[in-house]
Amino acid sequence: MTAYKPIGRIPVLEVAPVVEGGRWPAKAVVGEVVPIEATVFREGHDAVSATAVLVAPDGSDHSWAPMVDVAPGLDHFSGSLQPDAEGDWAFRVEAWADPYATWVHDAGIKIGAGIDTELMLAEGIRLFERICRLVPSDALVAAGRTARDARVLTAAARALADDTRPAEARFAAATAPEVADALRRAPLRELVSASDAYPLRVSRRLALAGAWYEMFPRSEGAYQKAGGTWVSGTFATAAKRLPGIAAMGFDVVYLTPVHPIGTTFRKGRNNTLVAQPGDPGSPYAIGSPDGGLEAIHPDLGTEADFRDFVTAARSEGLEVALDIALNCSPDHPWVEEHPEWFTTRADGSIAYAENPPKKYQDIYPLNFDNDPDGLAREILRILRLWIDRGVTLFRVDNPHTKPLNFWEWLLAEVHATNPEIIFLSEAFTKPAMMLTLARIGFHQSYTYFTWRNSKEEVEEYLAEVSGPQGSVLRPAFWPTTHDILPPYLIEGGVAAFAVRAVLAATGAPTWGIYSGYELVENTPRPGVEEQIDNEKYEYRPRDWERADEYGIALLLGTLNQVRRAHPALTQLRNLTVHPTSNDQVIAYSRRIAADHVSRATATPPGRTMSTGGNGRRAPRHDDVIVVVLNLDPRNVQESVVHLDLSALGLSAPESDDTAPFFVAHDLLSGETYGWGAHPWVRLDPQVRVAHVLQVGLA
Amino acid sequence: MTAYKPIGRIPVLEVAPVVEGGRWPAKAVVGEVVPIEATVFREGHDAVSATAVLVAPDGSDHSWAPMVDVAPGLDHFSGSLQPDAEGDWAFRVEAWADPYATWVHDAGIKIGAGIDTELMLAEGIRLFERICRLVPSDALVAAGRTARDARVLTAAARALADDTRPAEARFAAATAPEVADALRRAPLRELVSASDAYPLRVSRRLALAGAWYEMFPRSEGAYQKAGGTWVSGTFATAAKRLPGIAAMGFDVVYLTPVHPIGTTFRKGRNNTLVAQPGDPGSPYAIGSPDGGLEAIHPDLGTEADFRDFVTAARSEGLEVALDIALNCSPDHPWVEEHPEWFTTRADGSIAYAENPPKKYQDIYPLNFDNDPDGLAREILRILRLWIDRGVTLFRVDNPHTKPLNFWEWLLAEVHATNPEIIFLSEAFTKPAMMLTLARIGFHQSYTYFTWRNSKEEVEEYLAEVSGPQGSVLRPAFWPTTHDILPPYLIEGGVAAFAVRAVLAATGAPTWGIYSGYELVENTPRPGVEEQIDNEKYEYRPRDWERADEYGIALLLGTLNQVRRAHPALTQLRNLTVHPTSNDQVIAYSRRIAADHVSRATATPPGRTMSTGGNGRRAPRHDDVIVVVLNLDPRNVQESVVHLDLSALGLSAPESDDTAPFFVAHDLLSGETYGWGAHPWVRLDPQVRVAHVLQVGLA
Repeated sequence: MTAYKPIGRIPVLEVAPVVEGGRWPAKAVVGEVVPIEATVFREGHDAVSATAVLVAPDGSDHSWAPMVDVAPGLDHFSGSLQPDAEGDWAFRVEAWADPYATWVHDAGIKIGAGIDTELMLAEGIRLFERICRLVPSDALVAAGRTARDARVLTAAARALADDTRPAEARFAAATAPEVADALRRAPLRELVSASDAYPLRVSRRLALAGAWYEMFPRSEGAYQKAGGTWVSGTFATAAKRLPGIAAMGFDVVYLTPVHPIGTTFRKGRNNTLVAQPGDPGSPYAIGSPDGGLEAIHPDLGTEADFRDFVTAARSEGLEVALDIALNCSPDHPWVEEHPEWFTTRADGSIAYAENPPKKYQDIYPLNFDNDPDGLAREILRILRLWIDRGVTLFRVDNPHTKPLNFWEWLLAEVHATNPEIIFLSEAFTKPAMMLTLARIGFHQSYTYFTWRNSKEEVEEYLAEVSGPQGSVLRPAFWPTTHDILPPYLIEGGVAAFAVRAVLAATGAPTWGIYSGYELVENTPRPGVEEQIDNEKYEYRPRDWERADEYGIALLLGTLNQVRRAHPALTQLRNLTVHPTSNDQVIAYSRRIAADHVSRATATPPGRTMSTGGNGRRAPRHDDVIVVVLNLDPRNVQESVVHLDLSALGLSAPESDDTAPFFVAHDLLSGETYGWGAHPWVRLDPQVRVAHVLQVGLA
Repeated sequence: MTAYKPIGRIPVLEVAPVVEGGRWPAKAVVGEVVPIEATVFREGHDAVSATAVLVAPDGSDHSWAPMVDVAPGLDHFSGSLQPDAEGDWAFRVEAWADPYATWVHDAGIKIGAGIDTELMLAEGIRLFERICRLVPSDALVAAGRTARDARVLTAAARALADDTRPAEARFAAATAPEVADALRRAPLRELVSASDAYPLRVSRRLALAGAWYEMFPRSEGAYQKAGGTWVSGTFATAAKRLPGIAAMGFDVVYLTPVHPIGTTFRKGRNNTLVAQPGDPGSPYAIGSPDGGLEAIHPDLGTEADFRDFVTAARSEGLEVALDIALNCSPDHPWVEEHPEWFTTRADGSIAYAENPPKKYQDIYPLNFDNDPDGLAREILRILRLWIDRGVTLFRVDNPHTKPLNFWEWLLAEVHATNPEIIFLSEAFTKPAMMLTLARIGFHQSYTYFTWRNSKEEVEEYLAEVSGPQGSVLRPAFWPTTHDILPPYLIEGGVAAFAVRAVLAATGAPTWGIYSGYELVENTPRPGVEEQIDNEKYEYRPRDWERADEYGIALLLGTLNQVRRAHPALTQLRNLTVHPTSNDQVIAYSRRIAADHVSRATATPPGRTMSTGGNGRRAPRHDDVIVVVLNLDPRNVQESVVHLDLSALGLSAPESDDTAPFFVAHDLLSGETYGWGAHPWVRLDPQVRVAHVLQVGLA
């Protein structure tokens, strides 16, 4: 537990983001804008302020940012830090007395009222002596003082001391905007009191932001011979699909398990209990005499074929994610070699999966309590094999059915040697488990997004995932998976697929598509929210030529293009929901301030970005995207949108706030609108389901 | 910050009460029932449970309590610990797999459905072998297994193994209520995973619960001589009031400052800027040539007189609290001796208190930054002097205008030698400051109670102070103080004084009365929420004989008597608000379970309680009090009260839930009612403002 630490001269409390008192690091990625918060206050009436300090992995102070009191009655301060490299960073909050602000407040009132005027000026002169001596006294902020700022402050000090001028003029010289600006860049800080340093683990960008494409490699290139016997697709035939996936702008191709599949109790098509001859079985029932979790299904090819697939993916700018399902079929070699890694029942048999009275006899769950070290080390060895074969991301199937201490150890071991490896948790379960898998090291998590469809649900969920939880759990938004086909998509047709794609691509920095989305595959197996003829139990080659009929593939490509061009969309904790007048129309925005744009912009692989001076050239404008979306896939909806202008980095004009005063450029349609604070929109789902607008100055 | 600690085999997270990650201890008093909470869950479907363990100051496990899942979807467990002595205790939460519950669940379904019956019975036999071996394997809970329980479990194991009996009978024998009870007292725990131990500082009962009475000692016995000159009351005359205060059942007599008072810029009656001859000045403008914070005002008597006053108070069962106001008048000896303890302005003068443009020239604020150690040590020396003179509680005036690191050091130093000393914080300011004063060591805090008057305000505030905040900030409810006379009392007359007394005495374990409350003194100085002819600036002797006219003194006495007889009322975190049908009628209850009643009951000083066996005899019933109160001091109000029966420890009858089925005994009037779940009440403020009811079985 946290050691006793006395309160500082200026209290700093409730620092965030801090995970379980600092037991685990908060998360960020390179270029992410991390909101730092704290409660800061002091005794009496004098002014306080705070600074957020980012500490590099080598322990040195890297950069700092001013914090502002965002809820004065609650003394709640906030500021933003932006790490620029991977590693184990830290941050702290420094609270301090602000003698300049105190003097400006007190002297302003008293000189204005003609009380103690000479005394207040004399106090100001003393204060400016200290302000001008700043550099030696406060190394952290001193670097923020430019030579020009130093001249401004010296001139202000001189003017304040000039008793030939009227008091008001002397006070005005000391409080001019350029003086305040110089002191914002390098404030005079007194009684500086630091919080503890709290850990911040910074991963590569793909841990937060990326577009994933899921496929069953055996389906791509599978065909039926004369007589109906199926021939499996292979890594070689699946690789032919990679250019198409890359063309839609995806970053990751995710493969369902590629291991040998058991035959004992093999499931047949549509999850029937008895497989027919030729049924390929579920790739999640892992292991046969051909091998287990480390092996490759012979139908897909050899290890060399797998490596070739990875190479082909990389040449298209795609990384490869592999599904890790720690389930064994009764035919997995471990059943004979390591019965202690399973549960033996009172009758001597090995326990299969059950949810009484249901039985899943094709799956033997692992038991991590008989030989925890032996089993964990073997799984680590296998993951390292796959990493060696080129896998850089793991999509972990049902991690919530294995012990968390196993995962924490496993992920830490992988991180120690391969910090670039990213783990995605597929845990559709209760919040405490989902959150804790994220705390202990999973980089990303599937979410409840798929089941959030109404305006109220979506608004609440977007706010939740992009709020404080974002320092722990990085959300992945998937409209469907091979296991999930929600009613909204079953019932809503093409427009519904478009709506969910826009929501996923702009609602979270990471989103994913399960293959077939382009073809609007939305026929369920009766009675379940799942595809009919589910690819888990059969080959499912697809005719990609037909994708143009729906326009969804084009939309996916446009969305990924917009995401690459606009760093606001690949940040997490920068979302604002805006009210609308129609309960079928939702509006939200993401903004990244101009200062943060350069570092937030990934240099795409193979391309270099021109830089000038000591870094990239800072853009002059914030990157701001507004999404307005019709959730009703059947009907035209019209709405007024009530924009929170400050969230867009805009100030309201003083006069008529319905008049257009900024430009909204639709990145999907190419159209441009003049918008005010309360624009009116009309969205016809037959034409377009959404505006995705870049905010610009008129 | 918290060191990295890997997750346990069974996760335990979000343990409460924990203050800033354990940086400061959570608070309790001897006999307080402390709710312990945690998030506990596990992988897969097997059952989990948790145990709260109380660790004594010597590091040994003192006692444990079962925790139950109070919000299953959120995996939120809760249990109650009850420390029984002062000191620095700790607690931890142990999460564990519950193989008995898992087996009962799975075997119940499968045997019921005729699936794997023999196998499930065989698994049960294996399980009971481990259950019967409990004692050597789990020392913590083993002591909970009685010899009778051991016999019950052995018999169940034997019946389960008896294959001459039908399967259903064997399963029933293993799941009989007495088996479950025995396992509740000493469960079979597997994969036990402990949280960190978190600190819990246990103070004496008066830190949480007590009745305070505030007086200006100079007023008691003050009189005007012929010609109008005032003669001050003394400690000796003030002591004559002590029997009256004790007769009303108070625990503490609190004295406003007793030090010499400055004459420079002395305030006159009703806070006028210029005192008239004979005006005694405010006791908060401390220091004169007669001495400062360590000295006694010569008009009140000598140090010996003060000690005699303390002795007289103790003989009445009262402790003495002293006001500590760290303000100096310009005449305080420190101004000459230690100018570095004040702020010197640019013109060489010493700064007086200001809130620009207002000036408070009778007060010099201390400056703690020039010589922090010297000033702090002198204040500590002075507090120790007062402790030596018999003061056991300090009411600290405006602590929020002095640095918090000073208070934390000062309170820790006093605690190290005198842990019995209690500090009450008078900080009417923003929440972060109030809460942090409590975190760093103040035992009690004045609250916003005085300004919470409507039903909605009171309900919300009672829930707030008795919720999680109660592990840090112990609330003191004062209807008035010498500084505060709220509009509700100005306007509401005698009934309003009764309403606020009942709310204060039953809404918080600590409450306080400023003298004159008995006389319904409610005339404000025009324009301010403060008494006219405020006792701060003049003598105010009172005619206590007149108190009988109002009945308030009688009510105060009855309330304190009821509080002493009912330990439910001197606990904090046991309050439930019950809905009513009238927005002028409020209802709430406090309950302490039978198991906790003995330890929660203070043995009054000088009396011993008969004990039997290894401790006090446990009472057979919960102590449960329901308060129903008419907030409208002018009109009769009628209401239906919708009781949350589980909060009263009652189960609803199966049939008509409006029929009476428990006895409600009014502790104020002596009347008894038969109540159901939805009783109707009628409260006429001319007759009574409230029911304070003890819940009993019919």
